[in-house]
Amino acid sequence: QSSVQLYGLLDAGVEYVNHASADGGNLARVISGGKNTSRWGIRGSEDLGGGLKAVYNLEGGILMDTGGADGALFKRQAYVGLEGAYGRLVIGRSFTTTYELVIKFDPLGFAPNYSWATSGGATGPSKYGMTTAFDNMVKYTGKTGGFTYGATVALGERAGNSTDGRKISLGGSWFGDGIGLMATCEQINGITAGGNTTAGITAAPATGRDKTNACHAGADYKTGDWRYTAGMRNYKLRSGSPAIADLRGNTYWGGITRVIDDVTLTGAVYHIDTKNLPAGQDADPTMFVARAMLALSKRTDLYLSVAHAKAHDGQLVGLSRDDAGTGTTQTGVTAGIQHRF
Amino acid sequence: QSSVQLYGLLDAGVEYVNHASADGGNLARVISGGKNTSRWGIRGSEDLGGGLKAVYNLEGGILMDTGGADGALFKRQAYVGLEGAYGRLVIGRSFTTTYELVIKFDPLGFAPNYSWATSGGATGPSKYGMTTAFDNMVKYTGKTGGFTYGATVALGERAGNSTDGRKISLGGSWFGDGIGLMATCEQINGITAGGNTTAGITAAPATGRDKTNACHAGADYKTGDWRYTAGMRNYKLRSGSPAIADLRGNTYWGGITRVIDDVTLTGAVYHIDTKNLPAGQDADPTMFVARAMLALSKRTDLYLSVAHAKAHDGQLVGLSRDDAGTGTTQTGVTAGIQHRF
Amino acid sequence: QSSVQLYGLLDAGVEYVNHASADGGNLARVISGGKNTSRWGIRGSEDLGGGLKAVYNLEGGILMDTGGADGALFKRQAYVGLEGAYGRLVIGRSFTTTYELVIKFDPLGFAPNYSWATSGGATGPSKYGMTTAFDNMVKYTGKTGGFTYGATVALGERAGNSTDGRKISLGGSWFGDGIGLMATCEQINGITAGGNTTAGITAAPATGRDKTNACHAGADYKTGDWRYTAGMRNYKLRSGSPAIADLRGNTYWGGITRVIDDVTLTGAVYHIDTKNLPAGQDADPTMFVARAMLALSKRTDLYLSVAHAKAHDGQLVGLSRDDAGTGTTQTGVTAGIQHRF
Repeated sequence: QSSVQLYGLLDAGVEYVNHASADGGNLARVISGGKNTSRWGIRGSEDLGGGLKAVYNLEGGILMDTGGADGALFKRQAYVGLEGAYGRLVIGRSFTTTYELVIKFDPLGFAPNYSWATSGGATGPSKYGMTTAFDNMVKYTGKTGGFTYGATVALGERAGNSTDGRKISLGGSWFGDGIGLMATCEQINGITAGGNTTAGITAAPATGRDKTNACHAGADYKTGDWRYTAGMRNYKLRSGSPAIADLRGNTYWGGITRVIDDVTLTGAVYHIDTKNLPAGQDADPTMFVARAMLALSKRTDLYLSVAHAKAHDGQLVGLSRDDAGTGTTQTGVTAGIQHRF
Repeated sequence: QSSVQLYGLLDAGVEYVNHASADGGNLARVISGGKNTSRWGIRGSEDLGGGLKAVYNLEGGILMDTGGADGALFKRQAYVGLEGAYGRLVIGRSFTTTYELVIKFDPLGFAPNYSWATSGGATGPSKYGMTTAFDNMVKYTGKTGGFTYGATVALGERAGNSTDGRKISLGGSWFGDGIGLMATCEQINGITAGGNTTAGITAAPATGRDKTNACHAGADYKTGDWRYTAGMRNYKLRSGSPAIADLRGNTYWGGITRVIDDVTLTGAVYHIDTKNLPAGQDADPTMFVARAMLALSKRTDLYLSVAHAKAHDGQLVGLSRDDAGTGTTQTGVTAGIQHRF
Repeated sequence: QSSVQLYGLLDAGVEYVNHASADGGNLARVISGGKNTSRWGIRGSEDLGGGLKAVYNLEGGILMDTGGADGALFKRQAYVGLEGAYGRLVIGRSFTTTYELVIKFDPLGFAPNYSWATSGGATGPSKYGMTTAFDNMVKYTGKTGGFTYGATVALGERAGNSTDGRKISLGGSWFGDGIGLMATCEQINGITAGGNTTAGITAAPATGRDKTNACHAGADYKTGDWRYTAGMRNYKLRSGSPAIADLRGNTYWGGITRVIDDVTLTGAVYHIDTKNLPAGQDADPTMFVARAMLALSKRTDLYLSVAHAKAHDGQLVGLSRDDAGTGTTQTGVTAGIQHRF
């Protein structure tokens, strides 16, 4: 007995932002994935008897504004594995344990328009962030009552050195009585100086190996139509070279969500406390977000998101976690539609 | 209530052409998409109640001769939107209003082997043509009785300048009593000099912005087993620089189709009246096409297409709208099979 | 009446090999496709009546360790055609007649981890091998009783020269009374000097055109739970230049398979007799393989493969047919899971 499902999430809209160029010009654009990243995929399972299942997933991102693939064909997920009484073990490419745990503690669910829970725009794109997915990965996920816990390990795949390039993510969450709690940590090893470089990991200069640590904690409380969420990330990139300062920052966020019939209203604040920076460059950016969603059905939503970001010390900031920004503040509004099939 | 459909159109054959190299050599090749471009996709809709539907489509082109993608993954279409009593509004990447209206007025339905209704081979590939699809697009389509009308707008997405790079297509058609009529216009704005360039739009030199206008008119008449079709395009590319002459050309076509049981016979002529050219370079190319199709079922056809193209003034011409050609005439024949699933 | 099937084969595991770098380092890595290459696709057929069917297939490879496409989108197969009493004729991109016949005579079924039946690691990757698939292909396959026979022709697609770049594969097999026999040959033409080069075919220097011939023979015998398989390939690449020596090698293999309930055990040996090489460079590599597979269902398997390869004369050798290797021997073990949907 088995199943194959062709599925997708298509999210597109129009965004209007100010301060979109060095001379302060406004910009209107068609965006893909305002509420969630657009994607398509194939997934399924096979009942192997005795409570054991074979599970698999292929999933790729879509740029709805151009029809292009968002990265490699199945860059979001490509795994196969087994699931049974002892948990779920999969191998291939997929999201990390950290990603899967933290998303439930972001009031905006990692929405590209607008959330900084995965990373933020702080004097450069995607800084002080988590690693959302691993190549060359083995992932274990277990559940016991309200507890979910797991670990993801990505092999560094370097001959003669099993720790260079290795990535580890682990953590757990507990949900019960309207309360949710979460804690996770990840460690990303760079490549020792003189070794080859691996995509996405810069070879460290001279004396050592870069190492990145990012740990999260989060809490969530639901009561009636209201939901209160808070989370934080402690981030540290230690350079392999003593001459290069650590890159450090703490990200904090909190939000309130209210459901009124088919409408869901969310307000949230994200703040990155950038640390270890030279005087006069401490951006400490903050973003305020408000979103209204109207559910036309269980699978189709309209949404309107508004956000304002600002940075200190004359540093640049962008609403999008992928943009460095071109001004010290930016305000934007996105109107979009999302359909899941 | 909803539906997901995995679909495709696979079209492959063998083509034999003469004058395929500078020294006049003949060429046999396996082609993809002789009658229609090969494609695959996912589409569906969800009934939202009250006559409203969510609609979506992901569609990519296939090169059947190599197995490659024809452009980006879902370059043909990637949109999501709503359809109801007031019409259909979609957002993303898709064909233009012009494309959707004109295709019903081409006796060969934009067949790559052989039609010049989208563009033709006139001293350079794909010149004097329409824009078939827009990125960053919002498209509206309405229907009232026999009338179909609509507009497509593509945002230029340039900070501080909402008209640079903007593209607009609009038009309508009417069908009734065996008669069909169509008129459409599109305007494609280039980028003002000194601005950045956008893919596919050349930055104008010095003093202004390129602007392309292409307008179409068509008529169709069906009686018994016979169909008579005629169409034309007025094309003008005005350079932003006064020093560069306009690129102008009118494309005219006409065709007759007869259905005899499972066989459909089509004869057509395409002519481009190239204008505004220096003396002795006025190609004025013409292509004659004949095609026989045998329907093995509603979804499987065999076809045999023959075409001959010629140009004046010793200019080069190719049967394919994508080829500049290597001789002043070219003759070709394609035998192919098409299956739709 | 018709059918559309979305299908795939997902195979991932962890491999551990020694001698993976010039200094002899060991390497652990996540691999995609240990037992069979990971893939996904769409296939189907339409009953056209009178025993005739339209058939089609789109199939692409997947790198499960990164989520990337393994080559172009549908690089494995992209064809459409007809099948009836007189056989099956398809056009597009697909595997060759040789590939389809030989795979049944490889005890490891072309397993990337580990088989050299398509090509081997002999002082360079993928040398002395077959051509697994053709672009620009027309393929015929016929069946009469236990006989299967066919031919694949790929057009060279060069103007004025119909033989440059042309590829031909033909052969047949017979199965009956537990016995199987197979013979195939392929010829791959290069490009005449001075002509353009085609992807994958090197332009020959000066005086002529490269030509590759690869012929196979195989035998298979099944009795009870046991199966005995043997095959060989005679390979010759004749350079278009008299100054360049032929590249010649014979590949031999044999294997024994035993089925014990849900477990299938296979042992095999592959040997390449490299010929025509300078003294002291005659690698003559050999690989020994053992594999145990446990079927969890008809569509899900676990497997453990062990292999050891060695080369003579101090030449390099790699277990993978795609690796040149970094040592004169290599030993590896792969543990993996495969699921077909």
